[in-house]
Amino acid sequence: MTVWLNGSLLDEGEARIDPADRGLTLADGLFETLRLKDGKIRHLAAHLARLHAGAACLGFHVPLPDKEIGQAMTALAKAQGQQDGVLRLTLTRGPARRGLLPPAEPHPTLLLTLAPAGAEPGPARAIIATVTRRNEFSPASRFKTLNVMDALLARREAAARGADEALLLNSQGRLAEGTIANLFVVIDGEVLTPPVADGALPGVMRAEVIDRLSASVAPLNPADLAAASEAFLTNANGIRALVAVENRPIGGGHEGPVTVRLKGLVG
Amino acid sequence: MTVWLNGSLLDEGEARIDPADRGLTLADGLFETLRLKDGKIRHLAAHLARLHAGAACLGFHVPLPDKEIGQAMTALAKAQGQQDGVLRLTLTRGPARRGLLPPAEPHPTLLLTLAPAGAEPGPARAIIATVTRRNEFSPASRFKTLNVMDALLARREAAARGADEALLLNSQGRLAEGTIANLFVVIDGEVLTPPVADGALPGVMRAEVIDRLSASVAPLNPADLAAASEAFLTNANGIRALVAVENRPIGGGHEGPVTVRLKGLVG
Repeated sequence: MTVWLNGSLLDEGEARIDPADRGLTLADGLFETLRLKDGKIRHLAAHLARLHAGAACLGFHVPLPDKEIGQAMTALAKAQGQQDGVLRLTLTRGPARRGLLPPAEPHPTLLLTLAPAGAEPGPARAIIATVTRRNEFSPASRFKTLNVMDALLARREAAARGADEALLLNSQGRLAEGTIANLFVVIDGEVLTPPVADGALPGVMRAEVIDRLSASVAPLNPADLAAASEAFLTNANGIRALVAVENRPIGGGHEGPVTVRLKGLVG
Repeated sequence: MTVWLNGSLLDEGEARIDPADRGLTLADGLFETLRLKDGKIRHLAAHLARLHAGAACLGFHVPLPDKEIGQAMTALAKAQGQQDGVLRLTLTRGPARRGLLPPAEPHPTLLLTLAPAGAEPGPARAIIATVTRRNEFSPASRFKTLNVMDALLARREAAARGADEALLLNSQGRLAEGTIANLFVVIDGEVLTPPVADGALPGVMRAEVIDRLSASVAPLNPADLAAASEAFLTNANGIRALVAVENRPIGGGHEGPVTVRLKGLVG
């Protein structure tokens, strides 16, 4: 595997992250996951716009112009001979001396990796996580920061309980999202997804789906799932049917017609 | 600077963290901060007990027996010729392929660093953070995981507003703790500190102070600060007076008698 690190294409085994990097010591950074398909990077501008917004919230700058980031991704894909895959961009505030307060002049670390896309996952069966909740009060719920512990704990709970995915409640007990995907439900023919104010990550694919399906952003409670005729999960990798939650089928318990149609639209 | 990384004492510039380390990519790890004083590591057993509890929650193991961790810390201190300082232990789940779900057999990364202790900080003036809140629903609030973004954002807000520290509210609006320290207040002669259930980290120094002062664990609201005759912050580095919050003095606005006495007890 080749990685792109701070301007250089390197063999994975030679790339070195400084032990003092605040991305490692304090999760002081951001990431983006992007789909490479048929040699094209999907939604690059939208992902980088969110990256810039996150960096502004954290108080540092993306160290490379957007155009050059795109070029670096293309160079990485070429070096690995891949036309398809999952790109990951990791941006940290870089190495610093001890202390929570960041240095005034950081030297950010920018890392790009490219993994195989993997097979398209089948319909998902989810639990509602009990081990933790999503903190909708935190700006970290509105950007893709490296702080994904709650999603990780929920995903481990799902695996332990034999499920594919976990839905996270927010602090008020409303549905926020999945561990790596946004949640959509169809109720009385209307497509609904939880608001960012309830802890939903403003996903790039979420925005596209809201637009394509004229979906409504609305608070959702776990009880609302019983009224749904179908549900699906969205992220940069695409659309995945959600067919059961806590062993109760959603609608007919199989991929629904809106999900099928959506896959045709954004696939 | 020398660091200890996975069994080796290395020059800081030679120590290498793998870009695929889940500590970097997913903040999938823990840390502990310990005080080295007069050549002795303070509260080593209590810190390692919390580390083990955190690793158990995350589902992996500390890769070295406690005794050897202590020996490694001593070797690091010797290599740097330091009798005093701040030790930091960072434990991650180690390198892994892409994906939120951890590998079944991780190869954890264990990193030890030692920084100068720095001068004892003066009395603190704090804000109450508005930018974020502490997620008391998350197990991450009960262990020292690498996910410290909320503390970091609150600390940046404090700096921007000219304060030394920030107090974090939990999702219900109750006081949880500071960004790097637990909070204690004295009201009507009684010493009080917020419960872990409200988002307070179960700090090693917090436990010692509760014991030494026969303090009570009790929910605290911001309004309670007005009734406090004094307040202080505690962490592995020691005790620090909290003399004002949101520009309103606590008690007389200077280090109080309980704080002075406590410093003598645990110093």
